[in-house]
Amino acid sequence: MAEEQGIEKKEKQDNVIFVGKKPNMSYVLAAVTQFGDGQNEIYIKARGRSISKAVDVAEIVKNKFVQDAKVKDVTIGTDAVENENKEKINVSTISITLGK
Amino acid sequence: MAEEQGIEKKEKQDNVIFVGKKPNMSYVLAAVTQFGDGQNEIYIKARGRSISKAVDVAEIVKNKFVQDAKVKDVTIGTDAVENENKEKINVSTISITLGK
Repeated sequence: MAEEQGIEKKEKQDNVIFVGKKPNMSYVLAAVTQFGDGQNEIYIKARGRSISKAVDVAEIVKNKFVQDAKVKDVTIGTDAVENENKEKINVSTISITLGK
Repeated sequence: MAEEQGIEKKEKQDNVIFVGKKPNMSYVLAAVTQFGDGQNEIYIKARGRSISKAVDVAEIVKNKFVQDAKVKDVTIGTDAVENENKEKINVSTISITLGK
């Protein structure tokens, strides 16, 4: 149980893109590929400092690559996670739904 | 005209909080004060790297200070601005509407 609650938990859904430390274009490419593979809706998710990058990725996909994609929903939230010292900290989250 | 289009443009509306380089709690305090002054709706706005902080501020206000506040809307967008070298660059934007 405990292992599953860590920050590394990842859903392995095809249409969910977790934005982290890679360059923007890695995630843009992943999103464009999803749409190319026939997904009509993708979720771009991030936590903490990566939230700004998730917004960049969504805007680049929409404005430069998938012109008929629209931002259908943006939700923000808070996750309680443990840091390296086993202290509970809150991190903000974002989920951006892009759809055609 | 040209001066007004720079990144420093600020609307001076009472219920709009522009999140920038100050510590989170400066903006949290501003938001809480707005609600205390009788505003029913406030807008937390940011650009670029400050977007993550705007989400933190909204979540802290909602979860710790103004318990009846809800996230009513989140919109993301792109602004074209000039950098120091007079080059046009795109920056992502966010606007979070908190309301009671």
